Amino acid sequence: MAADLAREPAYDVTIADVREEALALAATRCGGRVRAVRADLSDQAALRKLIAPFDIVLGALSSRIGFAALRTVIGAGKNYADISFMAEDAIDLSPPAEKAGVTTVVDCGVAPGMSNLLAGYAAATLAPCEAIEIYVGGLPVERRWPFEYKAAFSPADVIEEYVRPSRIVENGRVVVRPALSEPELLDLPGVGTVEAFNTDGLRSIVRTLNVPNMKEKTLRYPGHIELMRVFREIGLFGTEAISAGGHHVVPRDVIAALMFPKWTYEPGERDLTVMRVTAVGVQRGGRVRLTWDLLDYLDPATGFTSMARTTGFPCTSAARMIVDGTISKRGVLPPELFATKAVVDRMMTEMQERGVRYEFRQEAA
Amino acid sequence: MAADLAREPAYDVTIADVREEALALAATRCGGRVRAVRADLSDQAALRKLIAPFDIVLGALSSRIGFAALRTVIGAGKNYADISFMAEDAIDLSPPAEKAGVTTVVDCGVAPGMSNLLAGYAAATLAPCEAIEIYVGGLPVERRWPFEYKAAFSPADVIEEYVRPSRIVENGRVVVRPALSEPELLDLPGVGTVEAFNTDGLRSIVRTLNVPNMKEKTLRYPGHIELMRVFREIGLFGTEAISAGGHHVVPRDVIAALMFPKWTYEPGERDLTVMRVTAVGVQRGGRVRLTWDLLDYLDPATGFTSMARTTGFPCTSAARMIVDGTISKRGVLPPELFATKAVVDRMMTEMQERGVRYEFRQEAA
Repeated sequence: MAADLAREPAYDVTIADVREEALALAATRCGGRVRAVRADLSDQAALRKLIAPFDIVLGALSSRIGFAALRTVIGAGKNYADISFMAEDAIDLSPPAEKAGVTTVVDCGVAPGMSNLLAGYAAATLAPCEAIEIYVGGLPVERRWPFEYKAAFSPADVIEEYVRPSRIVENGRVVVRPALSEPELLDLPGVGTVEAFNTDGLRSIVRTLNVPNMKEKTLRYPGHIELMRVFREIGLFGTEAISAGGHHVVPRDVIAALMFPKWTYEPGERDLTVMRVTAVGVQRGGRVRLTWDLLDYLDPATGFTSMARTTGFPCTSAARMIVDGTISKRGVLPPELFATKAVVDRMMTEMQERGVRYEFRQEAA
Repeated sequence: MAADLAREPAYDVTIADVREEALALAATRCGGRVRAVRADLSDQAALRKLIAPFDIVLGALSSRIGFAALRTVIGAGKNYADISFMAEDAIDLSPPAEKAGVTTVVDCGVAPGMSNLLAGYAAATLAPCEAIEIYVGGLPVERRWPFEYKAAFSPADVIEEYVRPSRIVENGRVVVRPALSEPELLDLPGVGTVEAFNTDGLRSIVRTLNVPNMKEKTLRYPGHIELMRVFREIGLFGTEAISAGGHHVVPRDVIAALMFPKWTYEPGERDLTVMRVTAVGVQRGGRVRLTWDLLDYLDPATGFTSMARTTGFPCTSAARMIVDGTISKRGVLPPELFATKAVVDRMMTEMQERGVRYEFRQEAA
């Protein structure tokens, strides 16, 4: 995100992180066009001081510290575009954000992010919008036994996805399904057969959109889900200490220590991001299905992973639109809350300029 | 084994174990016809004192203490019939056993045990015997996701089977294959499709039989092997401590703590034992294939598991034959070293009287 904004003379970009090596790598990738500041962003006083001189803040923080940082940025009266995952509900901070007169765009990556934007756009376009389905996954191009998976973001958050019950909207009611449930095989062009399973990814649209059927499913290469179900069943994802070999240990710590090194991308290793968002509803008297398909790869020219590209570019696009007033609402805004045609077109154009292409099609349904 | 011998008035049986509850259960199952003595059988002085008054000793000990006990029983000048698994080579103790003038039958269960006996018999009958294959498994009748397996003996020894490289004889040479390698599907009557993989089960016959091709494979329901390969690949069977959550823990301790409860038979739960031993060679000028098939279940009348029946009865049969002089050689004897037709017929008859049936057939090959 820093590299993307720093390419434009209008932006004077400073990056901050607690890890020296992450700062150094980011600065290199930005071609030296950014300032780098080492800072502990879980320290709210430090964060407040750090952001004081800036017009807008972008966030890509660990789930542990995302919500606290969000509150601090709002309290400091700064506009904010954020892709941090957080278990808390960011919209709870909308009243203080409105009061502070700031625009705070949250969950503005790929999914949540573009998925919300397209869902919100479909819900506003179709009358009524009957169903929205989101299928999304970040995967390694090279499939290696046994996981055929690597984590393009925090692997601990991936395990959370595998245990957290998923909220789905069915016939107008929120229902809860176990994680990893209802696996189904899908053939996706360019990717082949993948397996989709329920994840708790609808997030804000469960309450912001009035669509009677909505679900999000995560995509993996076939077989991964079964393995994760087995691990969960055995207790390897357990967070309560057990007694083993005379020690008290948390099984999840052990499987993380063994598994995460195998879930880590090699430097330069190609990843891909695949997403399909479909919406079914009525338009001018006929039932239609709208489909957006994304398939993106690591960019060898910049070295940016597909996950970085597909997640970061919506956020920088939102930041530009906050700065130029295209997104002008105050409060905490997940993308479905500013999903006008103008915003969708602008985001699609800016992403396309960066090589991230969403294919759209409309069919009778 | 105690129950089987105690049924006969000729035997005055005493059982010993370090666990009170195991003794109590065994005494009950023997219908009160045995004496029970609590003793730590890893304490050689205690063992020597315990066996002093007896004519013959039977052993069913943990792999940790089997070899030391064997040495002590030989040193005490007692005849011995043993089903203890041990990593050490029992035949190393043959010279002292010969010197002590004792008959020490080892590895006398189902496999090793009946497998050795039949292999030895085939090697002596065919001229030449070209190939011996042993397929064997102990399985739960009821298959439950995800393991479809329970351990009828020490689950720690089962994990050892999954990591210990397996010795195979190919074209007259001993070759070593990884554990869990060369999986193949087999349809076995009454059991259905099972999967066979290399295990290090040939043991003594690698050096006692002059057969150019010999292998042993263990049987599981399909899928189990893949899961165990994944566990091994990830490092869950590792015995070196790793750092996890601020502790040093041995992964195998953790997976054992989580997995072994699921590998434990419920009281009265039905198990089965399936084995196929085949031998190919020349008999009276024609090439023939000899096949022995075993399929046995828990006996609801006695409550004895199939694993106990198929493993214990060969050992009690051998004990009777030591006592009556049918097996009279001195030294440490795995079953292939006394595999005469008389011994094979006697064992088959005694097992059949107890409901354990080996089906034999001979075909042109």
